[in-house]
Amino acid sequence: MKIGLDVMGGDFAPDATIDGAILAREALDAQDEIVLIGQTEVIKTYLEKINVSADSFAIVNAEEIIGMAEKPLKALTNKPDSSISSGFRLLKSRQIQGFCSAGNSGAMVVGAMYSVGTIAGVIRPTTIAHIPQENGAESIILDIGTNPDTKADVLYQFALLGSIYCQEILKIKNPRVGLLNIGAEEGKGNLLCQSAYLMMKDTTDFNFTGNVESRDLFKGKVDVVVCDGFTGNIVLKQIEAMYRLLQKRKLTDDYINRFNYENYGGSPVLGANGNVVIGHGISSAIAIKNMIVLTRQIYCGKVTNKIRRALHNFSH
Amino acid sequence: MKIGLDVMGGDFAPDATIDGAILAREALDAQDEIVLIGQTEVIKTYLEKINVSADSFAIVNAEEIIGMAEKPLKALTNKPDSSISSGFRLLKSRQIQGFCSAGNSGAMVVGAMYSVGTIAGVIRPTTIAHIPQENGAESIILDIGTNPDTKADVLYQFALLGSIYCQEILKIKNPRVGLLNIGAEEGKGNLLCQSAYLMMKDTTDFNFTGNVESRDLFKGKVDVVVCDGFTGNIVLKQIEAMYRLLQKRKLTDDYINRFNYENYGGSPVLGANGNVVIGHGISSAIAIKNMIVLTRQIYCGKVTNKIRRALHNFSH
Repeated sequence: MKIGLDVMGGDFAPDATIDGAILAREALDAQDEIVLIGQTEVIKTYLEKINVSADSFAIVNAEEIIGMAEKPLKALTNKPDSSISSGFRLLKSRQIQGFCSAGNSGAMVVGAMYSVGTIAGVIRPTTIAHIPQENGAESIILDIGTNPDTKADVLYQFALLGSIYCQEILKIKNPRVGLLNIGAEEGKGNLLCQSAYLMMKDTTDFNFTGNVESRDLFKGKVDVVVCDGFTGNIVLKQIEAMYRLLQKRKLTDDYINRFNYENYGGSPVLGANGNVVIGHGISSAIAIKNMIVLTRQIYCGKVTNKIRRALHNFSH
Repeated sequence: MKIGLDVMGGDFAPDATIDGAILAREALDAQDEIVLIGQTEVIKTYLEKINVSADSFAIVNAEEIIGMAEKPLKALTNKPDSSISSGFRLLKSRQIQGFCSAGNSGAMVVGAMYSVGTIAGVIRPTTIAHIPQENGAESIILDIGTNPDTKADVLYQFALLGSIYCQEILKIKNPRVGLLNIGAEEGKGNLLCQSAYLMMKDTTDFNFTGNVESRDLFKGKVDVVVCDGFTGNIVLKQIEAMYRLLQKRKLTDDYINRFNYENYGGSPVLGANGNVVIGHGISSAIAIKNMIVLTRQIYCGKVTNKIRRALHNFSH
């Protein structure tokens, strides 16, 4: 497998991205290749500085950089030679089988939609995050910000996409899906949740177990937490706030340490018709390494194929 | 001041409510009176058991009890002799100047609207919670669940109501108002936040300082966090989850201890045309005491009058 890495993306690029690629090399198989996409001069200079042979990697030159705060569509249009635009061209032409970046996440989602597109039947591609559970398990939450406004049918599809991710990547059989809500009983919540509940309650497309409240987010009650991207982003950044606060106050243990974002490579763009992974903007080398490894897992788990098949059988 | 207490409301009623009333007696002035509303027999039996004279309190008999899970409007209609219905009758007829309960919070909001009503100009009454800040300060967040679906003009009004609470109860001058959002810049967020931002950005009705992300919830950046009731409830219960988790793991310090809900008496129903306070369902005696004290603070701070005046001058 050839994995494209946006070397220029992320707050600590290109040092952290190249260091991450070097770490990832050891975690990958010998036949896997990491394709460094970015300014060749910058890449070679850094590799030379740290005494790593440029031969360990394929390098594809891309002169432009899309900044973290740029408007996605405008940036992609105006910067065809950016590392993100180049990555998606390589992905579309199958020169790479996966593409990952810790850069502008909006540009990554829009770039995916405009290059490889979405899987037939996908209403909105989505992004996820892991939530460590007290019982040692991992749950996921989606959407985490890609879709701040969603309708009930989109939430329904998120449940399906999240279930497939859980099965294929976290190896959870028949994952339990909970609708994030402000009460446990049917009929609770805002209008969106009320209608999503009605759609989900008798489904056979996934294993719906009812509403889940945020007070139960860490209790291992469900494997997939479904919500609109506004709510998911609020939840996720509040977890970050609490983690940072506890680190600062030295109130930590093995469980709290699992909230360190570095452990997770980022999020696949679920529903994209290709293997696309978005890392956290503040990614360190370890986070970049895990992002590359996750890209390989998405590829090996055939997540895209499985979503395609599931949507083909979609009862809604 | 006469403060009505729903003795039958809350998971640990009537023991916790009566114990709380006894604690509150010491915190109030000599001329203040607590009116215990509930089953006289139950109240007298408990007071006798703990050797406290029934003369310390006024007692108003109310035979019925509204359960925590009952539908508010139906329960209030079918149980006119419930402690909550009785409390609101006393409040409306000015036999008490404030009414508080740790019982069915929906019934408390609906009861307030159907008895004392809302202050002229209030679109939706709202409830708040405190968020302890790392710098020692307190912020508030509203709405916390009373209004799961809101429009932008309602968020605008929440900002105003929250500002008045902050000024009068937390004694913060010119409180900074932040709109809870998933990005810092204008234009970020869901459609609700985008339009609320446009309404707020040039206001002179309150001190709007822009968007605030949930990663900054504890950093003392704003005094009033405004959001819809769905989001606010999710945030609040996630704080509860984290607090409970840290207690369990014995990861705690003076700051973390401030998240103990017992420290806060609950929430006033801001916008109601009377002094109404709702406590947490799991209220202990200490929480009940603080709920009674908060009811007095709302009365003494003339919060209702100040909201009335502010809405009279309302520019929107």
